[in-house]
Amino acid sequence: MRRWTADALRALDAEDPLSAFRDRFLLPRGCVYLNAHTLGPLPGDTPAALARVIEERWGEGLARACERPGETALLEELAEAIARLVGAAPHEIAVGGSISVDLFELSAAAVDLRPGRSILLSERRSLPTALRAVQGLCELSRGEIELVLVEEDEPLADKLDERVACLVVSHVDDRTGRLVDLQALSAAAHEVGALLLVDLSHSVGAMPIELQACHVDFAVGCGDKYLCGGPGAPSFLFVAERHLERVRLPLRGRVGDAEPFCVESARPPGPGIGRFALASPSLLALEALRCGVAVVAEADLPLVRAKAMRSSEAFRALVGERLAGYGIELASPEDPLARGAHLAFSHPRAEAIASALAEHGVRGDFRRPDLVRFGFGPLWNSYEEVWIAAERFAEVVIERALASGFPPERPERARS
Amino acid sequence: MRRWTADALRALDAEDPLSAFRDRFLLPRGCVYLNAHTLGPLPGDTPAALARVIEERWGEGLARACERPGETALLEELAEAIARLVGAAPHEIAVGGSISVDLFELSAAAVDLRPGRSILLSERRSLPTALRAVQGLCELSRGEIELVLVEEDEPLADKLDERVACLVVSHVDDRTGRLVDLQALSAAAHEVGALLLVDLSHSVGAMPIELQACHVDFAVGCGDKYLCGGPGAPSFLFVAERHLERVRLPLRGRVGDAEPFCVESARPPGPGIGRFALASPSLLALEALRCGVAVVAEADLPLVRAKAMRSSEAFRALVGERLAGYGIELASPEDPLARGAHLAFSHPRAEAIASALAEHGVRGDFRRPDLVRFGFGPLWNSYEEVWIAAERFAEVVIERALASGFPPERPERARS
Repeated sequence: MRRWTADALRALDAEDPLSAFRDRFLLPRGCVYLNAHTLGPLPGDTPAALARVIEERWGEGLARACERPGETALLEELAEAIARLVGAAPHEIAVGGSISVDLFELSAAAVDLRPGRSILLSERRSLPTALRAVQGLCELSRGEIELVLVEEDEPLADKLDERVACLVVSHVDDRTGRLVDLQALSAAAHEVGALLLVDLSHSVGAMPIELQACHVDFAVGCGDKYLCGGPGAPSFLFVAERHLERVRLPLRGRVGDAEPFCVESARPPGPGIGRFALASPSLLALEALRCGVAVVAEADLPLVRAKAMRSSEAFRALVGERLAGYGIELASPEDPLARGAHLAFSHPRAEAIASALAEHGVRGDFRRPDLVRFGFGPLWNSYEEVWIAAERFAEVVIERALASGFPPERPERARS
Repeated sequence: MRRWTADALRALDAEDPLSAFRDRFLLPRGCVYLNAHTLGPLPGDTPAALARVIEERWGEGLARACERPGETALLEELAEAIARLVGAAPHEIAVGGSISVDLFELSAAAVDLRPGRSILLSERRSLPTALRAVQGLCELSRGEIELVLVEEDEPLADKLDERVACLVVSHVDDRTGRLVDLQALSAAAHEVGALLLVDLSHSVGAMPIELQACHVDFAVGCGDKYLCGGPGAPSFLFVAERHLERVRLPLRGRVGDAEPFCVESARPPGPGIGRFALASPSLLALEALRCGVAVVAEADLPLVRAKAMRSSEAFRALVGERLAGYGIELASPEDPLARGAHLAFSHPRAEAIASALAEHGVRGDFRRPDLVRFGFGPLWNSYEEVWIAAERFAEVVIERALASGFPPERPERARS
């Protein structure tokens, strides 16, 4: 493993082709922000763009802000930009929902496309919000649809059989950053006639994604992490072209309808992905997402991925050197190719460590029960920040161990 | 019918206790805005409040903007304010969803609470978006739940029987402004053991509403009309306290969960209305809604209602005097107590009339197939604007009739 120094990391910054992106974000002074896996930072263009939309489209335009051409143009611009980020065609992407609703609806659509199959297969470690949406569908079906969860140490493939309608997985695991192989998973799912629904929340914007090339059937993704769309940003969904004409999403209407404002009666939805827009997404939230996606879409994703991997590898190496024997365990895969843009470490006092780090200006986060996570955003984090974060992390952990009066060689006993 | 003059209307403005509210909104110059039934105007406080939230909570606070205490405080403030507007307790209100999702989930919850009943009863004239959400539930149930629609001229009560799980109605009809009697409807529904779900989108903020006193079971409402929460503002839902502990909404999670960020597994939702918050509503959209609701909540709703009725009555009288014989028909109920804050008139050239009016600074709207609508917002519209709007409406219609070369006595023939 390479031995990193502050100078070596600064040298990487000097030749980093992405370094100019940092000025496109408004970051608090003196803060090393390593938590875009929760919320991406504020792009510099966003405040003025929002002020303009509020003043012009709402204040001046008034009800015209709700009219179809303006709303559709914004949704289409977003669909095009996101399609490029995930290796899809614009007409396979619909923006403006909520991740729970998207998962619920696509799970329902998957069961609908696989008559005779009743199982949605997922992982117990999935995000509770995601599982709840799928569980909600199962409850609503009164037992006709069943959610089967594989345990932590159990391969998904073991439970994949011809009873499974759809495999529902996170591309990058929320806790550990573990990355799944979409190509392999879609092949395994299709092998038994099942579909694949992927949650891209922790990968979109942080690495190249090839939904079409990997034969993914459905996908969803958050707008508030690496897309920098703001707290509670609208989500997006993907439906592979081959399913477009047959998929029905129970909640979708209006924007994509052939006759969106017809008062006569409910009409059948129009053709294409347009019909999968949820009614009346927030214009303000969409505009903020547009600003975030616009910055991210300018970056070369292979470069973003390479920098995230190099940053997390350097961090892991630095932490490993400084904190061997302090009870800090890597909870993420060791291979940078097998994880996303964030790294997780376990420690019994993870929560206190994350708080102390935040007080020292390094904002990773705590994840129950015992994880400290650090997310590397190649567009706003420098390599030098990797050094600073590792130094502070080591200081905080070592101070805690010393303050507890236990020798650093036996940090486990410091738990009492 | 009283004969209104410009002076009489100006005199009403001079003594209007609500007149000071007009300065709380940013309205375009020279525009008589009569379309809050589509989108409420921009409150003056909103741009700065949004800029502050973007800068402080997102830009400075970063991931803390997604943390539960801040998010919950905003949702609770909104729930309290909306509860006062609709005659409910704050713990019966959850804010932050989408109207389609809310209708879908509450319809599902209603069927769940009425085992053995399979019918959701609604009106064919309901908003297509609303019907689509309920239809989506029926499709998902594979025929176990059925949507039955009564026709325009058919009383709902005729179809209410013990097979009906829930009656789903708009408080104020989107097209005509017709207002239903919530007390009578809930009594009729409960008489046969059915529940009542009301869409308050066109009434909330425009009149006093007493959900508890009227024994309404469930309700939903938009934030973007008389609540002035902006284009695509978050919706709210109401669950009567007596149902709170038994209702399960399939898509709800996170914010209200007992352990919202627990990574161990999906937990059962916590108690109370908190569990009915949809995951991750947009902070920007919520803040805009907070600003709108804050202004509306300062007003005395009986005064708001009285002014809306008087405005629409004056408008109707003025239009009646000027346009008798021009093919303009009132599509709204004649009794102001039987309608909400907007008035609709039918005319075969409604679309052209609405466009011409907008060019002359009067912004009502066109509703297919043949309606021109005018909504009176007592907090931002003056009585004098009623005069201006009626004058322009008459000018536009008469000009059109004259231009067609037909005598104004026979305007029907001008249709050719």
